[in-house]
Amino acid sequence: MSTAEIPRHGIATVCLSGTLEDKLTAAAAAGFDGVEIFENDLVCSPASPARIGGLCAELGLSVDLYQPFRDFEAVPPDVLAANLRRAERKFDVMEQLGADTMLVCSTVSPDAVDDDDLAAEQLHLLAERAAARGLRIAYEALAWGRFVDTYDHSWRIVRRADHPALGVCLDSFHVLSRGSDPAGIRVIPGEKIFFLQLADAPKLHMDVLQWSRHHRLFPGQGSFDLAGFVGTVLGTGYAGPLSLEVFNDVFRQADPRRAAVDAMRSLLALREPLDGDTLPPAPELSGHAFTELAVDEAAEPVLAGALGALGFTHTGRHRSKPVQLWEQRDARILLNSAPREHARDGGADVTALAVESSDPVASARRAESLLSPVLPRETGADEAALSSVAAPDGTAVFFCRTGEAAPGSWREDFSPTGNATVAGTGITGTDHVSLTQPFDNFDEAALFYRSVLGLRPEQATEFAAPFGLVRSRAVSDDSARVRIALTVARLRRGDWAPRVPSPQHVAFTSDDAIACAAALRERGAPLLEIPGNYYDDLDARLAPPGELLATLREHSVLYDRDETGAFLHFYTDVLGGRVFFEVVQRLDGYTGYGANNAPVRMAAHRHPHA
Amino acid sequence: MSTAEIPRHGIATVCLSGTLEDKLTAAAAAGFDGVEIFENDLVCSPASPARIGGLCAELGLSVDLYQPFRDFEAVPPDVLAANLRRAERKFDVMEQLGADTMLVCSTVSPDAVDDDDLAAEQLHLLAERAAARGLRIAYEALAWGRFVDTYDHSWRIVRRADHPALGVCLDSFHVLSRGSDPAGIRVIPGEKIFFLQLADAPKLHMDVLQWSRHHRLFPGQGSFDLAGFVGTVLGTGYAGPLSLEVFNDVFRQADPRRAAVDAMRSLLALREPLDGDTLPPAPELSGHAFTELAVDEAAEPVLAGALGALGFTHTGRHRSKPVQLWEQRDARILLNSAPREHARDGGADVTALAVESSDPVASARRAESLLSPVLPRETGADEAALSSVAAPDGTAVFFCRTGEAAPGSWREDFSPTGNATVAGTGITGTDHVSLTQPFDNFDEAALFYRSVLGLRPEQATEFAAPFGLVRSRAVSDDSARVRIALTVARLRRGDWAPRVPSPQHVAFTSDDAIACAAALRERGAPLLEIPGNYYDDLDARLAPPGELLATLREHSVLYDRDETGAFLHFYTDVLGGRVFFEVVQRLDGYTGYGANNAPVRMAAHRHPHA
Repeated sequence: MSTAEIPRHGIATVCLSGTLEDKLTAAAAAGFDGVEIFENDLVCSPASPARIGGLCAELGLSVDLYQPFRDFEAVPPDVLAANLRRAERKFDVMEQLGADTMLVCSTVSPDAVDDDDLAAEQLHLLAERAAARGLRIAYEALAWGRFVDTYDHSWRIVRRADHPALGVCLDSFHVLSRGSDPAGIRVIPGEKIFFLQLADAPKLHMDVLQWSRHHRLFPGQGSFDLAGFVGTVLGTGYAGPLSLEVFNDVFRQADPRRAAVDAMRSLLALREPLDGDTLPPAPELSGHAFTELAVDEAAEPVLAGALGALGFTHTGRHRSKPVQLWEQRDARILLNSAPREHARDGGADVTALAVESSDPVASARRAESLLSPVLPRETGADEAALSSVAAPDGTAVFFCRTGEAAPGSWREDFSPTGNATVAGTGITGTDHVSLTQPFDNFDEAALFYRSVLGLRPEQATEFAAPFGLVRSRAVSDDSARVRIALTVARLRRGDWAPRVPSPQHVAFTSDDAIACAAALRERGAPLLEIPGNYYDDLDARLAPPGELLATLREHSVLYDRDETGAFLHFYTDVLGGRVFFEVVQRLDGYTGYGANNAPVRMAAHRHPHA
Repeated sequence: MSTAEIPRHGIATVCLSGTLEDKLTAAAAAGFDGVEIFENDLVCSPASPARIGGLCAELGLSVDLYQPFRDFEAVPPDVLAANLRRAERKFDVMEQLGADTMLVCSTVSPDAVDDDDLAAEQLHLLAERAAARGLRIAYEALAWGRFVDTYDHSWRIVRRADHPALGVCLDSFHVLSRGSDPAGIRVIPGEKIFFLQLADAPKLHMDVLQWSRHHRLFPGQGSFDLAGFVGTVLGTGYAGPLSLEVFNDVFRQADPRRAAVDAMRSLLALREPLDGDTLPPAPELSGHAFTELAVDEAAEPVLAGALGALGFTHTGRHRSKPVQLWEQRDARILLNSAPREHARDGGADVTALAVESSDPVASARRAESLLSPVLPRETGADEAALSSVAAPDGTAVFFCRTGEAAPGSWREDFSPTGNATVAGTGITGTDHVSLTQPFDNFDEAALFYRSVLGLRPEQATEFAAPFGLVRSRAVSDDSARVRIALTVARLRRGDWAPRVPSPQHVAFTSDDAIACAAALRERGAPLLEIPGNYYDDLDARLAPPGELLATLREHSVLYDRDETGAFLHFYTDVLGGRVFFEVVQRLDGYTGYGANNAPVRMAAHRHPHA
C-alpha cells in the first residue's frame, strides 16, 4: 500500500469522556485525522456547530460523520414528513459543522413496517434531500434493528434505493457480534461503503444492545478478528477513514487524553498486518532480565532480609545510584532506595520490569512508534544506555540483553559486592510478574503489552475474591518465557477493610517447589501459612495422592490441576506494604496461574498470623 | 401468626464482603439467627470448621446450611464413586461445623445424563449416606441446570427418590428469574422443603447465570414479588429460616457491617405484609417540610444571596443554633452554618430533609424498628423534640408537622427576623430533593426510603452523562407529594476532570416556570445558561410550537415530553461547591424528572460561563 492510500484515522467523540471540547482536543493531540461528531456531545456544547467546525479545523481534524440519526425509514406518510423535517434540521447543523455524511441507523421504531421497498423509497427521498445540500447518507444495520439487522440486508436496501448520495455504513461490532460472515462484504462496491466504524469486544453472553452500549473495546483489546474484517473492507476499494466507535463504560469516565492515545495505538497496531512495514517488527523476547522494586527506608531492610532468606545473594551495587542487585540463578531483583516523587501505595513497589530482547534498540523504537512514552534516564559516563518505556500503570519496561558478553549489558552498571554466593534454594528464574492495574487502564494495558511487546493476551477471567470481584488477564510470548499477569478490582476493593493491599508480586520458577519451600522455611523466609481447610477441600476436589497432600499441607504449598497440567506454588507474606513473592513449579505444561487459589491467598494475606 | 411461628432470619455468608470471621460478626451484629456457610468462605479461613462452629455458637448464630455441593447426580458409576467420596469429605466438615443440611445444586456437568430415574436413585444413595451421619440433603434446581432447571422438576426427582433425608431447596431467584409460576409450590409438603433462599433482582435482559452471580439484590430492592413467593412457601407449612442468598458485585466489596443491616432490614420489611403487626405502620406523608443545607463560611453568603435572588425571604433565626430559615410559600430552606466534623465534598451540602408526617413519633418508631440509626439531637428547653434518623448516605431525615397550629412544630424553634417578605417569584413549594449516593449505598438507599418512609421506588434508569454513566432511581409517595431522586455514578465520575461536582439539589415547584425564570433573571439569580444547540435539537426532536421554543431558549428553560405529560424546568449554577437549585413545572401529570436533559445540565455545570 503506497503512502497515498494509507487510510485516515478517525474516532467518534462518544469513545471519550468529557465535554465535546475535551474530546476534540484529546483526539487531535493523539494524532487522529478526523472525528465522528456524536449528536449528544454537540447538543451539550455551548459552542455553535460553526464554532465546533472551526475548532476542528484549527485542530487539524476533519468532521467525517455526524451521527446518529435514528428511526427514519419505512414509516407512514405523516411520520415520514416529521422525519424529513427532523433530518433537514440536522442537515442545517451539518452544514455549519462542515460534515458531509450523516449516519442513519436501521429503525427500531414501533411506527415502522417490515417493507424493504418502502424503506428503499424513503431512503431515496432522504438521499435526494441530502444531495440537494451536498450531503450524503450512510445507512447502517444495527445488530438489534427491528427489521434490518444484518449488513447484507442494509446493502440490499441501499442497492434498491439506488441513489448516488446513499451508501452503507459498516460497523465491525454490528457485523461480528451477530457472527455474520464478513466475506459477503466483497460484493459491495467500495464507493458504496460510505463509512467504516471499528470496535472490538470481549465474547459475552448477553443482550447484544447492552453488549454494544457498555462493553465495546478498541481493536486488539477484545476477541474479534478486526484485521480480517478491515482487510475485507479495504479489499472492496473503500477509501474512507478507519474510524473507531467504542461505547465503553470505563472509557466514558477515563481521562480522554490517555484514552485517545490508547485508541490511536489500537489503530496503528491493527494496520500492522495490513500495511506491512508501518511499524518496526517486535524483536523476539526470551525472558525476564530483572524486576526492580522501589523501597523506602523502612521497606529496604525487610525486602533485603526476605531476599536473603529466599536464597538470593546481594551481588552488585549500582555505580551511580542507590540500587542493589540480588540474584539467584536467572532470577534477579533490583532494590532501588532512591527517594521517589510519586510513591504509589506502599513502601515497596514494582517500578520496573526488564525483558530480554534480541534487539533492545528496535524494541524501544517499536514502542515509540506505538506512542509509548520513552522514559528519560540519567546515565553515567560508562553506563549502559538502557531503553525503557512507561507501561499504562507507570511501570517502566526495560529492553535488555543480560548475557555476560553482550555489549552494553545493564550488568556493567553494577560493581560486584564480592559477597559470597549464598547456597541457592532451587529458585531458577522469573516465571511472571503480576501487576494490579489502575481501574481505568486494564484494557489499555493488555493492548500495550500485546502491541508494543508483541505478547499474546489470554482471555480475561473474573473471580470472586474475599474483598470484591477481581478480573485477571495474562499476556505472554509464544514460548511463555515472558509472562505478565494483569489484575484489577472490577469495582473497588474493600475500602472498608484495613490491611487489604492492592498487591504486586514477582513469581520465581523452581524445578522442585516442595523442596524449595522446605529449604526456605528452614532459612526462616516469611512464607504465607495456608489454612488447613484449603487442604481438606483440595482432598475432596482433586484427591491428590495422600503423601503429596500431606507434604503440600506441611509446607503450605498450593496445588492446581487442569487439562494442561499441574501447578505447585507458594507465597511469602506481603512485604513492605504491597509486594510479595511467589515460587511456582509448572508440571506437564500447565499454562495457568492457579487462579482458583488466589482467593485463599488474598484472605491469608489479611490474616498473616492467624 | 403467633410468635412461636415467626420464621428465623438467615443469611448466606456469600452475601457479605470480607473474611468468614468478618461476615459472621457482621451477621450476628445485625441480628440474624443463622447463616448458610458458603464453602469458599470456609476454605479461605484459617480457623478449623469446629472453631467456626464454636464462633457461630458464641455469636448466637445457628449454621443452617452448608453450600454449595455441585455436580453430583445422574453420572456413570466411577464418577458416582468419586462424588460420594467428595460428599463424605464435606460431611466431615459439616459435622465439625454443626451444620445439618447440605445444599446440592442440580448438575451442570458434562458427565451427567438426562435421566430422572438415575438422578433420583443416586440422590437416594446420597441421602442414605447423609442420614447415616444425621445429616440432610436439600436439592435445588439451578435456573441454568443442565437437565433440571425448574423447581417442579427438582421436586419430581426428590419425590421419586423418596428418602426422609432428601428434600428440596427453593431459591426465589431460580424460580422467578425463569418466570415460573410459584403457585405450583403449593403441592410440595412443607416438611419436604428443607430450605428457602431469598433474593430479589432487577429485571435485566442477560444470561441468567451472569444475572444471578452479579446482580441479585436483597428483597425489596429489585422487581420480584418476594412477598407473594414467601407467602406461598409459608403456606405449605415450611418452618425453616427465611435465608438470604444474594450474589452482588457491590455488596461483595462493601462494608459487611452495613450490608448485613441492609439485609436484615430487607427481611423485616418483607415480613410486614405476611405477619401483620410486626412493624408500626408507615404514617402518611404529605410533603417536604424543609431541606437543610450545611454551609461553611465561604458558602453561606453565596447561598443566602442566591435564595434572596430566587425570591426567598429570610424569615427566622434558630433560637439556639446558627441556622437561618428561608421561605417562599411552602418552599423552605435552612442554612446551617454550625461547624461540622465531617464535611462532605464541598462548602455546602444537603444534610437533612424533612417530610411532613401525619404522626412524626410513629414515623420515627417505624424507622427505629427498621434498624435506622436515630440521630441524637441537642434540644433547648422550649424547643421541639424533632424525630430524625440517618439515611444510608448520612442525610438526616426529619419527620415533622409544619402547620402553624400543630403542637411541637419545628417552626417554634425559630424566632422571626421581622424581615419584610420579599415579593415572591412564583416558587410554591418543594418538588423533590436529589441526592448523589455513595457508590456502595445506592440499593440500600432505595430500600431505606421504601421500607422506612413507605415510599414507592420507580425502576432504576441509566444514562450516559458527559463524565460517565449515571444511574438514577426516584422514590415517591403514592400522591407524589414527597419525591426523592437518588443518583450514583455507575463506575466512577470523571476523576480526571476538574470542577465536576458530585452534586445534590433541591427542586422547587412553580405554576409558571417561564414567568418564574424571567422574574429570577430580572432579580439577578445565578441561573444556568443552556446551549443553543440544545434548543436546535429540541426543535428537531419534539418540535414544540415556535413561540414556546423561542421563550424556552430566551430563558434557558428545558423541556421534556412523554406519555405522562410535559415538563418545564431550569437550574441555577452550582453554589458553594456542590449544591444547586432547580425550578420545575409539571404539566398534565408528567411523572418524570427530565432525565433526558440531565447530561446537558451536567456539561453546562462544567462550563458555567462559556
